[in-house]
Amino acid sequence: MKEAPIGIFDSGVGGLTVLKQMLVHLPQERMIYLGDTARLPYGIKSRETVVRYSLNNAAFLLERGVKCLVVACNTASALALDALEARFRVPIVGVILPGAEKAARSTRVQKVGVIGTVATIRSRAYETAIRSFRETVDVLSVACPLFVSLAEEGWIQDDITRAVARRYLEPLIRHGIDVLVLGCTHYPLLKPVIAQVMGPSVGLVDSSREVPLQVKRALEEKGLGAPGGRRPGVPPKVYLTDCSAHFLELSQTILEISPEDVEYVDVG
Amino acid sequence: MKEAPIGIFDSGVGGLTVLKQMLVHLPQERMIYLGDTARLPYGIKSRETVVRYSLNNAAFLLERGVKCLVVACNTASALALDALEARFRVPIVGVILPGAEKAARSTRVQKVGVIGTVATIRSRAYETAIRSFRETVDVLSVACPLFVSLAEEGWIQDDITRAVARRYLEPLIRHGIDVLVLGCTHYPLLKPVIAQVMGPSVGLVDSSREVPLQVKRALEEKGLGAPGGRRPGVPPKVYLTDCSAHFLELSQTILEISPEDVEYVDVG
Repeated sequence: MKEAPIGIFDSGVGGLTVLKQMLVHLPQERMIYLGDTARLPYGIKSRETVVRYSLNNAAFLLERGVKCLVVACNTASALALDALEARFRVPIVGVILPGAEKAARSTRVQKVGVIGTVATIRSRAYETAIRSFRETVDVLSVACPLFVSLAEEGWIQDDITRAVARRYLEPLIRHGIDVLVLGCTHYPLLKPVIAQVMGPSVGLVDSSREVPLQVKRALEEKGLGAPGGRRPGVPPKVYLTDCSAHFLELSQTILEISPEDVEYVDVG
Repeated sequence: MKEAPIGIFDSGVGGLTVLKQMLVHLPQERMIYLGDTARLPYGIKSRETVVRYSLNNAAFLLERGVKCLVVACNTASALALDALEARFRVPIVGVILPGAEKAARSTRVQKVGVIGTVATIRSRAYETAIRSFRETVDVLSVACPLFVSLAEEGWIQDDITRAVARRYLEPLIRHGIDVLVLGCTHYPLLKPVIAQVMGPSVGLVDSSREVPLQVKRALEEKGLGAPGGRRPGVPPKVYLTDCSAHFLELSQTILEISPEDVEYVDVG
């Protein structure tokens, strides 16, 4: 079981940012990644649909013998973690708690902002999680639906993206937050513009960076960590549910995955 | 069979613009609408996925006894019409041909622009269809992926939308087109801005307006038209595959459908 791989899933290829961090911080572990590119995005859909898709994805990975599940998608973490934990017995790590813990510990003025998909923000999952670490923190959340399209369009350092960011983030600036959680795997791609609009006094929390530590802890707790000594850099196995060129290109941008490393599957 | 309903499907609720036109022009017909809101959007996905989803949707409608299928989604019309015609025997009307015919007949300078999703534009379906009506027409196509998100965000008469439109449409203006096909069911929602950016000398073709005539022809050809005399305004039956509030609100905006008229189904 210690030798088994870790399974990571996301609604698409944005979660490859999490896989990337995992490869850096847990080099002795094998990884399997599943991106549900055929049914993305999750962030505009209902809890029922997101739970159903998440259960499909987890079942696919567990059939491949994973010892632990990482839910790299913020929306799936916010809406489906309970359902996954009720159904499966392996340790399951979402991206909400690690990001929330970091934010709760970092704020000095006790005011934290959260940006994410409509579904993530509506669920109030970050708010609940941040308050579970520090009850007195004031959390203001804003949905930024256009950020994913802008990131996918590649309009990164761009006047239009800056104008959109100003409109979405203005209430957070006015609220006087000093920590902003990037609550969607795509948002780190827009970090330059978000940082510029928020100004240097606001710290940005990228949940993907906090996940490996949490996974390490979960594996150690259950005695499931891979024995050391494996050569670092074992290439991950990547599955996608849709084979459009669009997602391949995006995968390459994020993780330098070349087409031959990717396998297409139907998990529905 | 004449009394059977007409089945209309779309990747989401944008196709309700087509249903609206159908209700106006074919008031004696009963209609069933299916929006695949759980798996939308189609426009960034592969041909394989769009074909599979389209076959699911068509099968669902045919099980409900429809006499004719309308593919209200531009992407599904561009990528899956052949597969649908190979599998099913009822008359099938997509949105590409009606829009292409109108554009080919309207252009005076023989230069037509087409805007649509990445998948629609890549398929070159409009180009092929327009040339089938008038071989000499010069067609320039541009994918506008952000338009759907902007329309769904409700940023209709908006400076950011205007800036995005200017960036996408600029090559079409420079090319000197006099007719622009709005090749995605969401784009008519942005008509005010698109018209303003293109200027008064460019005619806009909204495929949804051309569909009812084509359907009428197809039904007459097969002797399948409903007998007249039925009271106009029979309320359509609407099925969606996801029940998020987001799509309900959008449905209400487009067609004034109230929540109790909508049923949620799984077609996958």
